[in-house]
Parts: sequence; C-alpha cells; structure tokens
Amino acid sequence: MGIAATIENPTKPEDAGLNDLVALVADGMSRVNSTILSRTGSDVAMIPEVANHLIASGGKRLRPILTLACAQLCGYVDVGGRDGDVKLAASVEFMHTATLLHDDVVDESDMRRGRVAARIKWGNEASVLVGDFLLGQAFRMMVEVGSLRALDILSAAATVIAEGEVMQLSAAKNLETDEKAYLAVIRGKTAELFAAACEVGPVIAGRSEAEQAAARSYGMNLGIAFQLIDDALDYGGTSAALGKNVGDDFREGKITLPIVLAYRRGSEEERAFWRRTLQHGEIGGDDLAAALACLQRHGALEETVARARHYGEQATAALAIFPDGPVKSALLDAVEFCIARAH
Amino acid sequence: MGIAATIENPTKPEDAGLNDLVALVADGMSRVNSTILSRTGSDVAMIPEVANHLIASGGKRLRPILTLACAQLCGYVDVGGRDGDVKLAASVEFMHTATLLHDDVVDESDMRRGRVAARIKWGNEASVLVGDFLLGQAFRMMVEVGSLRALDILSAAATVIAEGEVMQLSAAKNLETDEKAYLAVIRGKTAELFAAACEVGPVIAGRSEAEQAAARSYGMNLGIAFQLIDDALDYGGTSAALGKNVGDDFREGKITLPIVLAYRRGSEEERAFWRRTLQHGEIGGDDLAAALACLQRHGALEETVARARHYGEQATAALAIFPDGPVKSALLDAVEFCIARAH
Repeated sequence: MGIAATIENPTKPEDAGLNDLVALVADGMSRVNSTILSRTGSDVAMIPEVANHLIASGGKRLRPILTLACAQLCGYVDVGGRDGDVKLAASVEFMHTATLLHDDVVDESDMRRGRVAARIKWGNEASVLVGDFLLGQAFRMMVEVGSLRALDILSAAATVIAEGEVMQLSAAKNLETDEKAYLAVIRGKTAELFAAACEVGPVIAGRSEAEQAAARSYGMNLGIAFQLIDDALDYGGTSAALGKNVGDDFREGKITLPIVLAYRRGSEEERAFWRRTLQHGEIGGDDLAAALACLQRHGALEETVARARHYGEQATAALAIFPDGPVKSALLDAVEFCIARAH
Repeated sequence: MGIAATIENPTKPEDAGLNDLVALVADGMSRVNSTILSRTGSDVAMIPEVANHLIASGGKRLRPILTLACAQLCGYVDVGGRDGDVKLAASVEFMHTATLLHDDVVDESDMRRGRVAARIKWGNEASVLVGDFLLGQAFRMMVEVGSLRALDILSAAATVIAEGEVMQLSAAKNLETDEKAYLAVIRGKTAELFAAACEVGPVIAGRSEAEQAAARSYGMNLGIAFQLIDDALDYGGTSAALGKNVGDDFREGKITLPIVLAYRRGSEEERAFWRRTLQHGEIGGDDLAAALACLQRHGALEETVARARHYGEQATAALAIFPDGPVKSALLDAVEFCIARAH
C-alpha cells in the first residue's frame, strides 16, 4: 500500500448552512474519506505528499456530498457492501482535485485553498503528474463500481471540463467576452462536474431517465449558481465588509460576469480603465478600489447574484419530481446556502 | 463536431521492419486514423489545433498497431460493426499522446517529434488541458466498447504510467539510481502502456486468462526492450555514424541505463565527470564527446543493447502459446525491428 495521506476535518463555521446535508451523508462521507486516503497511497512517496497537501487542506467536499445525497434521495441500496456510491463520490472528488492541480499550472497560481500551491512547493511537473495519477485512480474506482452508464457520464464530464478550461484560456483577458460565452465557460469548468456528481446517484440506484435528467439539471444549475456567487465574492460580494483574497480575479485579469456586465454598461472612460487593468495588466495601488466603485455604480455584483438566484430557482424546480423528505429538504437548503454566501 | 485535425501518412523508410505488421492491420489502422480525427474535433478551436500539431507529426503508431494485431491474433470478430478493436486502439494512442503533451511540460522540452513542442507554441496550459481532453476522450471510447475488463486494464495503466513518471522525477539527476530502480521507471513510463495495448486484444476477443497474460507479457517485455534501445540510440546506438538529436538525454541530465552502467564501472575521475555534467548540469562544448568515449570504454551501449535483447527474447517466448500464422510472425518480427534500430 505504501504511504497514505491524512485528512483533517473540513467543516468550517461558515459552512453551517450545509449542516443538514452533511449530517445525512455523514456515514458515507467517512467512508469516502477513508477511500480517498487509501487510494492516494503509493510506494512513490511524492504522490501522497502532493495529493495530501491539497486534499487535506479541506474544501467543503460539496461534490462527493452531492453524489451520496442524490444516491440516497433515490433509495440507493449498497448490495453486498460494494460501496458503489462511496467509490463514485471519491472518484468525483479525485477528478476535482486533479483539475485543481492542473489549474494551478495553467493559472501559474501561487496559492490554493489558503496554502502555497503544490506547483510552487514541488514544481509544475509534480502537479501535472499527480493530477494524472488521481484521474487514473478515479477511473479505476468507477470501473470497480461496474456501471457503464456512470462511467459514460463521468468520462464525458472529464472532456467537457477540459473543453471549458481551454475555452476560458481562449477568452482570457478578452473584454469582448459576452454573457453567453462566459456561461459556456462556467458550464464546462464548474457546473458539468456538479451535474455529473448528481446524475450518477439515480443511475446507480437504477432509477428512471427522467430522474437521472432531473438530478443532472439540479447539479448543473446549482453549479452555475455556485460559480456566479464565487465570482461576486471575489469582489467582496454584496456585503459592505471586505473579506480576505478580495481582488484575486482582478489581479489575474480574469473576465468574470461582474466585469462583463460593468464593461457593457460602462462609459468610454470606464472601458479604457478595464482595458488597461485587465487586458494589459497595468494595475496600480488604487485600481482595485476604482474597480469596486465601478462595479457598484453599475450594480454589477447585485446583478450577478440575481443571475445566480435565477439558476438556483431552476435547481430547486428540478427536484420537484422527487418525493418530499429530509434528503430533498437538505438539497433545497444547499441551494439557499450557495446563494447566501454572497451576503 | 466542429473543427477536426488532419493526419499525414506516418510511414517512414527506416520503419520497413514493421511492414508485415503494418500491412496486416492496414484496414483497422485506417479506421483508427479516422477515429482519431473525429475524436479530436471540438468547437473549441484550440483543441484540434494542439492535438493535430502532435498527432499529425506522426510517430509509428506502434501502440495502436499492437492492439489491433493482438486482437487479430486472437481471432477477434467485430460483431455488428462496433469497432471494439479500433476504439481501444485509438484510446491507447490518445493515452500516449496525452502523456507526451504532459511530458513536455514536465521536461520543459522545446522539441517533440522533430517539431517545436506544443507548450512552446501554445503555452504549458494548452499542453496540460488538451492532454486532459484526450485522456477524457480515450475513456469515453473505452466506455463505448463496453468491456469492463479492458477499462480496468487501461485505467490501471493510466495510474501506473503516472507513477512511473513521478518515479523518474524523483530519480532525476540522481546518479545513485541503480539498474533495478531504472527498470521500475521504464516499466511504468513506457512498458505498461505497451503491455495494456496488447492485453486488451485477447480480452475483447473473449480469450482465456492465460492468453491475456501472454499478450501482456509480450507487450511488457517489448516495451522494456523498446525503451532500452531508445536510451542507447540517444547516444548514437552501437553504430559509428551519429544521427541527429544525439545527446538530448545527456543535455537534460537524464539518468538512463547506459549512464547507470558506466557510472558503476567508472573511475573516480569519470564519476566526477558524470556528477559535474548530469547532476550539476555544467556541460561544456567537449563534454558530449567525452561522455560518448566513456560509454564506449565501458561497453555501456553494447551492454544496454544486450539487456534489450534479453527482454526481446522474453517477448518472443511469451507468444509461444499462440498458434503459428502471419500475425504471430509479424509480431515476432516487430521484436527484431525494435532491437535492430540500435545498429
């Protein structure tokens, strides 16, 4: 087995809105965490070291939680202790972790989840290769589960995520990006994995295509809402208090929805400002404050949150075909939680 | 479907030793090439551009040829035109191409297959993401074939390849690497995919475990022999005439078997030379010539070729359980071809 990574408890006070969901899947998540530990083990010591650096630093584990919850919502029964839901949930988290490791190389990030990025500590090469290792392990676990339909969904998601990331690359620093193009990017890079994570639940529970499509739609819309709120939060959200890390997207020249909206609505002078800062990367000490003022002037953050609320409503509506009960309630709360982060 | 890549004819005169094998699988390979074209298509224009840059530049396509040949050897019949052998062969080539794209980022290579590396033309980020896209497409095709056993073999190969590459990273510039450690690296980074490419042939033909194991052993040993000859060729092989690209491994500080052998057998002065050039990267104008002289003095290249011949013999022996015929003969010739490249 070799060396294994260790996992800290990822629960944070600001994630309290997810408490019901977390409690409902607690048993499964403890098996997901053990699976993650054992599947990052390797005799090649650098693999668990790098994987552990990122996995142990937490995150909410929202994606595997969604897989377990959607399987539970659909009455999945683990015949013979084969841990189908747990292995698919762990696969989803590995796919997400692999994406983060590769993203760091793509973005040349210095930080990730409040820690120095793996690529700074071990080099780009380790981030690329350990990401590949985790992707391989994800597919091995899916194969063990033995559902060709689940394999189909998750392998298609892997290509769509990569396409979304390449699209983002092509759109980078391009202020001509419109809302439609931006939505195509976040559907790929973020929402597709949420959608796949949810869809495989009814699939392994053997439920109808209508229920599979409903779970997929819930995940897709939730994922879009989640990313839009992230984009708003990067400029402090709609609250007056500014948290840490405000302005990361600005400094990296990322064109997100708040920028798309403010640029469209901006005066010629404001557009010149966005071109100088985001397109040419000439950012001075007062520019973040000026950017925030401009976003505020055009209501760009409120508008972004309103768009997120719209997608959240579609996520909520998608769950209508499932019977009421504690899991459905908790999944509905998760939508509220994602939106409420903005305040 | 979007934009698709184009494929040039990859046949080169020096590959004539493979002619029988190439002729036997010609129909299948033409379907593999069409599949590669259609599966690199994407509405995101950068994806076929980058994929095409590498795929169209050729290479012998040895791995997919092996998949088709091993399926044919085992009497695979394509029921209902589902192209199981063709899709698995294309998957194997995509896995190989993804590895090359990611390797370029890892090695910081400037050139690949005689062309400027994709990462130089489009950046590290494009190499990482298009590699991920191809890996996702590879798994989608495997899922379409529907053999869980083939999926198991190829997903396991994906993790073993990544482990081998990380091992190589840990061993880089480390002159304490011994022959055993070096063989573990090349089993992972090269031979595992050869083994998997061969093993899936009898698998989709529904043949016995003994035949699956024999095909795997043929591929594994052929892969090791292939890599050892590559290592010798990087120092010009055993021929007096030096080809182009001689000394690439030397300039990159790669510890390959010729170096492992010469370092073990070297005088204190020679060891100091290897430490200065490979470990510390202090390479002057006369150092490649000095390195070649040192390798020659200790017979390191002949010895490397002798090791390759040993693995080649094991590959040949593994085919004994299959009935004689044109495919088996051509697979035996392929072993000879791999070894003969060194002269």
